[in-house]
Amino acid sequence: MKSFPDLDNCCQDVLAEQLNHWSLANGLVMYPPNFETYSTCAAPVTLYPTPFPKTSFVKALDVQDSFNELYAKVSSDVDWLSSVMDELIALDKDFTGKLWNIYLKAEKIGLCQPILLGLVRSDYMIDSDSMIKQIEFNAISVSFCGLSPKVSNLHKFLNKSGYYTSSGSEYYNDESELPSTESADKMADGLAEAAKLYNSQEHTSDSLVLFVVQPKERNVFDQRAIEYSLLSNHDIKSKRIVFNEIQNYVKVDPLSKKLFYMPTNEEVSVVYYRSGYGPNDYPTETEWESRLILETSKAIKCPTLLFQLSGAKKIQQLLTNKVLIEKYLSNEKIEKITDTFVNIYPLDSSEEGIKGQTLAFQSPQNYVLKPQREGGGNNIYKDDIPGFLKKLSKDQWNAYILMDLIHPPTYKNTIIRNAKLYNEDVVSELGIFGTIIWNSETKKIISNKAADYLLRSKFSSSNEGGVAAGFGCVDSLYLFQ
Amino acid sequence: MKSFPDLDNCCQDVLAEQLNHWSLANGLVMYPPNFETYSTCAAPVTLYPTPFPKTSFVKALDVQDSFNELYAKVSSDVDWLSSVMDELIALDKDFTGKLWNIYLKAEKIGLCQPILLGLVRSDYMIDSDSMIKQIEFNAISVSFCGLSPKVSNLHKFLNKSGYYTSSGSEYYNDESELPSTESADKMADGLAEAAKLYNSQEHTSDSLVLFVVQPKERNVFDQRAIEYSLLSNHDIKSKRIVFNEIQNYVKVDPLSKKLFYMPTNEEVSVVYYRSGYGPNDYPTETEWESRLILETSKAIKCPTLLFQLSGAKKIQQLLTNKVLIEKYLSNEKIEKITDTFVNIYPLDSSEEGIKGQTLAFQSPQNYVLKPQREGGGNNIYKDDIPGFLKKLSKDQWNAYILMDLIHPPTYKNTIIRNAKLYNEDVVSELGIFGTIIWNSETKKIISNKAADYLLRSKFSSSNEGGVAAGFGCVDSLYLFQ
Repeated sequence: MKSFPDLDNCCQDVLAEQLNHWSLANGLVMYPPNFETYSTCAAPVTLYPTPFPKTSFVKALDVQDSFNELYAKVSSDVDWLSSVMDELIALDKDFTGKLWNIYLKAEKIGLCQPILLGLVRSDYMIDSDSMIKQIEFNAISVSFCGLSPKVSNLHKFLNKSGYYTSSGSEYYNDESELPSTESADKMADGLAEAAKLYNSQEHTSDSLVLFVVQPKERNVFDQRAIEYSLLSNHDIKSKRIVFNEIQNYVKVDPLSKKLFYMPTNEEVSVVYYRSGYGPNDYPTETEWESRLILETSKAIKCPTLLFQLSGAKKIQQLLTNKVLIEKYLSNEKIEKITDTFVNIYPLDSSEEGIKGQTLAFQSPQNYVLKPQREGGGNNIYKDDIPGFLKKLSKDQWNAYILMDLIHPPTYKNTIIRNAKLYNEDVVSELGIFGTIIWNSETKKIISNKAADYLLRSKFSSSNEGGVAAGFGCVDSLYLFQ
Repeated sequence: MKSFPDLDNCCQDVLAEQLNHWSLANGLVMYPPNFETYSTCAAPVTLYPTPFPKTSFVKALDVQDSFNELYAKVSSDVDWLSSVMDELIALDKDFTGKLWNIYLKAEKIGLCQPILLGLVRSDYMIDSDSMIKQIEFNAISVSFCGLSPKVSNLHKFLNKSGYYTSSGSEYYNDESELPSTESADKMADGLAEAAKLYNSQEHTSDSLVLFVVQPKERNVFDQRAIEYSLLSNHDIKSKRIVFNEIQNYVKVDPLSKKLFYMPTNEEVSVVYYRSGYGPNDYPTETEWESRLILETSKAIKCPTLLFQLSGAKKIQQLLTNKVLIEKYLSNEKIEKITDTFVNIYPLDSSEEGIKGQTLAFQSPQNYVLKPQREGGGNNIYKDDIPGFLKKLSKDQWNAYILMDLIHPPTYKNTIIRNAKLYNEDVVSELGIFGTIIWNSETKKIISNKAADYLLRSKFSSSNEGGVAAGFGCVDSLYLFQ
């Protein structure tokens, strides 16, 4: 591995200006808090690509289609989901419980679209022995596939321009060490494939993809990259609706169950959620009703309620059981997948749960405590765990799982936010995007692909990694042997 | 011609949000006043492409290489330039005079690079009879070749997405009516061709293009588009230096006269001026010295002092004389060129000058009064002309020329600035970019091309059209038969 390009302050300032200009000229941007629609800021990124073992990267790409397949199959194993759902609902009544409830209602009304689309991301960290270890599998509303290619192109530009060397005239990285990521195009390809499948099923040609989004989304440019790719590469139009305004903008034909976007009376082929993944997206009953309306329409959902539910942390914990996944995957795939697992313990009264409780108090420094819900941002780390658990009543412990803490290598890098440079050690999390189209009736895979990568880095001193939340930033890979 | 897409307020608001997102996601941006490096704004543009007669557009593209040739040849007819320069200097001692002075000094020291590169733009308005009439020929530092393709792509996107029709699902324009402009790439091609010529002359391979820029440039993203194209399409690196810091960053080898960028010790193949075109760029003697240093180096200049001087308005006025340009061009080319001329009068004591003086007071409503200097922004229109001239002493009149005012058609459009929409009639100015490489020793053209277009529009009620100055905006063409 090459040594870190330790530039002096002057070279770093030149580099930072180059970086800001490139970001703003190429849409590597994010709205600041309290933004005006016409003005934006460069997204927080690292100045340099971060080292990552090539073999680990190849492994992460290689296992993606197995994870896609696993979660697609789990999502249509309704019997099994039902059997564990009682437990999940008991743990997280207000959100997981309501999601399941809406599913049951939808099922009663009638689900008329067997095809589901998953646009997913599996997140990993490198453990001390260069093994990739899965942090989580995200089954809904995964972000940064739009910005990730731009960060990679930014770093390639800076490298090619010579700004990474103090001589200013040489490459720091060989171009072969900086893998491309076409995640925006590949995720758009997934949407396009589903839309075309719908069109051919329904004998229509001019449908659109509906992006269901959050109000005042700051990360809108990440989503827009997918929309622009859809239109330019596939001639497929998209519309955006804020989740809580859905019912003002769509209607379902009562006979055909087709979904229409009312302002233009266009048919919706795919409903793509970039909202609806956490309880905050459902402030009133209206949003739950909206979800039900969309779920029971003929449009292909990305994802369905069951696919979203399959991404729950509790399910992830249950799926670490090899016996369980033998139902779904071939041995070869199971081996690949289980290689990426860390130990996950419940905190309930089961044998495993008792073990988890003991470990949480005996050696909390080896663990992270995670809530069952999607979304992140509420993890409890190491020595904070015992105090946190003590404040809860014991029957509340069930809402959390205890996971082996991964000890990723740290590397020197520099994070730039609002033109301020932070020279610190960082740790990185690799995300592999994936797309899967699955027929839940015939239980057949129609399409199953890895869709390139995301790298996020954060100060090694900080525990949380959410980019939008202000703790981390988007990065790209420098692969070493 | 299609009728104007008169959308209601609600549709226009949706359109404006689409537009702002696209602009910020694709670098169609400009720094606001008092900017921070990491934050920018959508550039002022029209919501819709503006109608323009297709035959007029074709004519403007067709005549470009003749104009390129004419000005290249004028710039190396030193005898003729000398013969008229006395007159120019008398008119504009402080700027044109000093430019010429520096040229004379440079000539004495020795000019060692016969090749010149012109990146130019010829600006036109449509007159009442759909004829294109030249407003001016810009021989230095022409702007907006970087942003123009983005505006065109923005309008194509909005059209293709259906946002121009109130039904929201149809195209307003056929795609064939919206011509593409690749002006950023084509201007970069010009720089690249000159750089490669230099490299082969000097048996070097790793030279760079030096962008000489203004401090705190708000329109930097326009320039960056050229730089990014240079690197990605031609593997040619560029560096930017603020004009008044040149001497801290470059040195000339006293023997070879080669120019070097000191921080990286790289050889400079082409000096590209995006500064140095007006007196404000030369606040001290240092800038004049810098210009001399660059002019006498071996780097190819874009443009040379003589090429810049050839773009003076006075020269433009003299070149309306058919007899004069017979020296330079074939009859066929002369005819094409003179078709685009309007009457231009001096205000001196010559026969033509007396006529100009009379017209300025008798029928000022038909004229615009322009200073001889490059840069624009100081024109006097119509009935303001007599009062303006009266305030000057008569010997100062010489510093201006009087031009036929063109009466362009007005079209409905909407200008968007900082999310505010202005529904007004606009008038438009078409710019055709061009690139020429010329050997002033052998008097041979090495390369001569048109490089696509720019359309700028302004309220028909406003006289000035500078986009950066806040009066106008960047637009794109809707060609009609």
